[in-house]
Amino acid sequence: MAQYTPPLRDMRFVMHEVLKVSDELKLLPRHADIDAETINAVLEEGGKFAAEVAFPLNISGDAEGCTLDQVTHEVTPPKGFKAAYGQYVQGGWPALSCDPDYGGQGLPFVVNQCFYEMLNSANQAWTMYPGLSHGAYECLHTHGTPEQKATFLPKLTSGEWTGTMCLTEPHCGTDLGLLRTKAEAQADGSYKLTGQKIFISAGEHDLAPNIIHLVLARLHDPENPAPAGSKGISLFVVPKFKVTPEGGIGERNAIFCSALEHKMGIHGNATCQMMLDGAVGTLVGQPHKGLAAMFVMMNAARLGVGNQGLGLTEVAYQNAVAYAKDRQQMRALSGVKNPDQPADTIIHHPDVRKMLLTARAYAEGGRALAIYIALMLDKEVSTDDEDERKEAADQVALLTPIVKAFLTDNAWLATSHCMQVFGGHGYIKEWGMEQHVRDARINMIYEGTNTIQSLDLLGRKVLGDNGARLKKFGKLIAEFVEEEGTVEEMQEFINPLADLGDKVTKLTTELGMKAFGNADEVGAAAVDYLRVVGHLVFAYFFARMAKVALEKQGSGDPFYTAKLHTTRFYFAKLLPETASLIRSARAGVAPLMAMDEALF
Amino acid sequence: MAQYTPPLRDMRFVMHEVLKVSDELKLLPRHADIDAETINAVLEEGGKFAAEVAFPLNISGDAEGCTLDQVTHEVTPPKGFKAAYGQYVQGGWPALSCDPDYGGQGLPFVVNQCFYEMLNSANQAWTMYPGLSHGAYECLHTHGTPEQKATFLPKLTSGEWTGTMCLTEPHCGTDLGLLRTKAEAQADGSYKLTGQKIFISAGEHDLAPNIIHLVLARLHDPENPAPAGSKGISLFVVPKFKVTPEGGIGERNAIFCSALEHKMGIHGNATCQMMLDGAVGTLVGQPHKGLAAMFVMMNAARLGVGNQGLGLTEVAYQNAVAYAKDRQQMRALSGVKNPDQPADTIIHHPDVRKMLLTARAYAEGGRALAIYIALMLDKEVSTDDEDERKEAADQVALLTPIVKAFLTDNAWLATSHCMQVFGGHGYIKEWGMEQHVRDARINMIYEGTNTIQSLDLLGRKVLGDNGARLKKFGKLIAEFVEEEGTVEEMQEFINPLADLGDKVTKLTTELGMKAFGNADEVGAAAVDYLRVVGHLVFAYFFARMAKVALEKQGSGDPFYTAKLHTTRFYFAKLLPETASLIRSARAGVAPLMAMDEALF
Repeated sequence: MAQYTPPLRDMRFVMHEVLKVSDELKLLPRHADIDAETINAVLEEGGKFAAEVAFPLNISGDAEGCTLDQVTHEVTPPKGFKAAYGQYVQGGWPALSCDPDYGGQGLPFVVNQCFYEMLNSANQAWTMYPGLSHGAYECLHTHGTPEQKATFLPKLTSGEWTGTMCLTEPHCGTDLGLLRTKAEAQADGSYKLTGQKIFISAGEHDLAPNIIHLVLARLHDPENPAPAGSKGISLFVVPKFKVTPEGGIGERNAIFCSALEHKMGIHGNATCQMMLDGAVGTLVGQPHKGLAAMFVMMNAARLGVGNQGLGLTEVAYQNAVAYAKDRQQMRALSGVKNPDQPADTIIHHPDVRKMLLTARAYAEGGRALAIYIALMLDKEVSTDDEDERKEAADQVALLTPIVKAFLTDNAWLATSHCMQVFGGHGYIKEWGMEQHVRDARINMIYEGTNTIQSLDLLGRKVLGDNGARLKKFGKLIAEFVEEEGTVEEMQEFINPLADLGDKVTKLTTELGMKAFGNADEVGAAAVDYLRVVGHLVFAYFFARMAKVALEKQGSGDPFYTAKLHTTRFYFAKLLPETASLIRSARAGVAPLMAMDEALF
Repeated sequence: MAQYTPPLRDMRFVMHEVLKVSDELKLLPRHADIDAETINAVLEEGGKFAAEVAFPLNISGDAEGCTLDQVTHEVTPPKGFKAAYGQYVQGGWPALSCDPDYGGQGLPFVVNQCFYEMLNSANQAWTMYPGLSHGAYECLHTHGTPEQKATFLPKLTSGEWTGTMCLTEPHCGTDLGLLRTKAEAQADGSYKLTGQKIFISAGEHDLAPNIIHLVLARLHDPENPAPAGSKGISLFVVPKFKVTPEGGIGERNAIFCSALEHKMGIHGNATCQMMLDGAVGTLVGQPHKGLAAMFVMMNAARLGVGNQGLGLTEVAYQNAVAYAKDRQQMRALSGVKNPDQPADTIIHHPDVRKMLLTARAYAEGGRALAIYIALMLDKEVSTDDEDERKEAADQVALLTPIVKAFLTDNAWLATSHCMQVFGGHGYIKEWGMEQHVRDARINMIYEGTNTIQSLDLLGRKVLGDNGARLKKFGKLIAEFVEEEGTVEEMQEFINPLADLGDKVTKLTTELGMKAFGNADEVGAAAVDYLRVVGHLVFAYFFARMAKVALEKQGSGDPFYTAKLHTTRFYFAKLLPETASLIRSARAGVAPLMAMDEALF
């Protein structure tokens, strides 16, 4: 039987022992009265919801999928999804980190981060229904008019209504500048939108009585035509049902689900083709500035996708460990381990452990990074100090593509390893392992493919400011190396960390020089580069975790011993990947671009 | 629309220009009159069958799957599968490399290898129906009694009947020594078998009127009990329908499909749970020596699985290239490439090319290796010279785990990359790309997981004979390095090949020494080690292909230019993986085994 236990101990370790988040959060006016007990209590309840309500619907939701009524255009998600969403709303979970001005609980993003990790472990497909609402909320909160805010934010905060992001069209995903959906201004200040959208997650369902679509479209005004490309895109809010002056549900708007996509995974989520046939919406933000407004959603969504990868890594790990401790097969090469049994449990086989520890290390490293960036986000949003805000915003900007791409690539590796631990039993649906692999695969694609993330990191975030953001993060590492450089028992972690830091500096400089000569050098190296920097960030957090674990391992709590083992595994077996990645990154553009297109 | 074009040009290049197979085969008495024209003509027809008959059923077969009638225990494969099999039999394809004594065409394995690569590209799930018959044929051909041969081999050769391998049970896959199915001797010399088997590919279907199951079971004789473990296992042939004295179909035997497995992929193939309820069979080979007899099938099956990986790599590559040449998205970083279009085709983006070339290089390297080992198999089976037979058998033994594991791991990487080229369109079923990924995943598991392959390579094939087999293969490389070492234009390939050869020698010696101290060192390093040796083998074949391409690039045929580009890509971007793998392999057992089981 598939199982899931919320990793509350490790979350508390990262939050309170390593990052000391409540000390940091208390300095922010909004969170002046936060404390560790509150955070822990909320997450304990959140973990119960994830494990007891969302998780039991994961395998059944995958098997059942969603169904579209071709006549009414209504979509029915798998059994139990609606009831679970009802419990989620009832429990006040949508409001966790939302603005108290609109009914939110105003808790830090750190808490929401951990809660959503658990939801993603429990049921990624289900979690996408409430998850998408957060992007719509953030976008309207930042760019909405007072009226839009008053109309939509309380309903999104309470979870009474849900939200979506409608960006992709059949001919454009990455390149939104090509989009064709058009918006025509009406006399009353509203717009009528016409066009087709595809791949709209949670685009239609019966979990909530209204769905608030954030739609990218091109303003169609013959006398004042929208500029071509991405500079001519505007953002609109288009509700499934128009909202009455009293804020209730009015008449049906002309935005319909015309088909459901048949996908590799996340079957429980309704991925919709949406037709807009003169749907009425209102403009969000400035005309032609829709892409910038949309990026508020997109950045939140990218962190959310990284978190999906983290959640799947954790749940796959837990199940693979349970199986490896139970399944008996062959004797250990180094001698019999379970003499009273016909074979040894497979956890005694070194490569099974390698697969398990890979997933474990990717989960623990990813969790540390994800909580750290959530803390930076809290600072960015809630500090009164402009320098601190800028500092935090720079870190969020730098780390967002790493969270999105590194954590989801790692999840693909980790879920596949954990499935492999099950042998043939991993390939069949019974244990849920192959579902984790299928679900994990989308995370490398949507909200900007991982290649796009790598271009964002190397091209925009690093070379785009001559390495200033990267240097700031590098300074954190240098300070830590300086502090711990003389502590003997930290050498095994500090030395490879410092070494990789130097290599990243050199590689960055080299790629920057090459990019002057040929911009394709960025594209040729970016994916390798992102993984190298991802490992640098992980090595930094693992070293910080090791420091705490070393200090406390005398406490008798085996948690710290396990943390040190995982850290040593990470440095011995996963970090070495950087040696190859750096060689590949340095090999440059010629091996990729020399071949004529016709020869492919 | 999904597409597939048989890669006949590249097959001819490997066979005739690099390996000169007809010169080699002509020296074997059985193939004295073979020539390139015959081989090419057969493969051209075989390619037509794959592309025109098997391929159109691939996506529909995945969507439809198989159905079991719970009353009759009959299984219906997807629409069109039976008719396609009829055409396959009609065309004489099952008999291609079979023994003329039983109606076979006696063509070399090299031909069958290329034919099956194409079938696997076209439709892995369908191909497993005839594919499994080959294992049963080989096993009975080697170990069957004259009566068993006379009864079954002509029917398997013609394809009138198909075959299976029934090994796995619920509690044992890797560890067949645990199996419980029992066989009781009958007065007439036959046996009654009782037990349950799982994961039986092509275990039940309507493609052929009879199915010949090769079943592992434990002889149950109270007076002469079977030894415990793998030394007490025997092999039986158990037909679905008993065979009449005239060789026709008799009464139904008590071996039934009790359930179909619900799998991640290969939906078109019926993966069956099989109940044996006093099914009547006859012994194949000696009592208690079933595992050895079974390994005849298993070794053939392992090469077949590697070939499945190769086939999927090729078809995924072809479709990703077609999409990358067609899909327009964003402008190239280095400047506009398609000025008359709103965006550039994505083949102009470096990382798209990196993903495409990764698949291409893995296909071309895998094809060279797979055809080479088929040639060695032809020598092993058909030579009259005992030294040559031994030499060839050693190479087959050494390379089999590499073909199985390296080609299937590469296929997992390659199909995932090719899917990624499609962005969101890769995640939906329409283009067939996600199916290639799902189908590819089983190949890393069945017929011995890739971890088992790596233990077979490092533990048995390399350290088990003190490196003798590896040294023989190393000698081939050393001779080639010696020959080409002074050719200037070969330096870029010869130097890294020679360097990697030295590193493999050192690594092997080091691991051998460590293994004396702790046998778990083999298990800790084996998976990394197999990939390192896999790259060494690929580097050798790529260098040999480059030599031919350099000689002929003046011919004006762009094929040779493309081959050189792919080879340079391989050396620049894929071979560097060995740097990390060697570091990881050398990191040893402690990072894996130090953590107490309870801490996982």
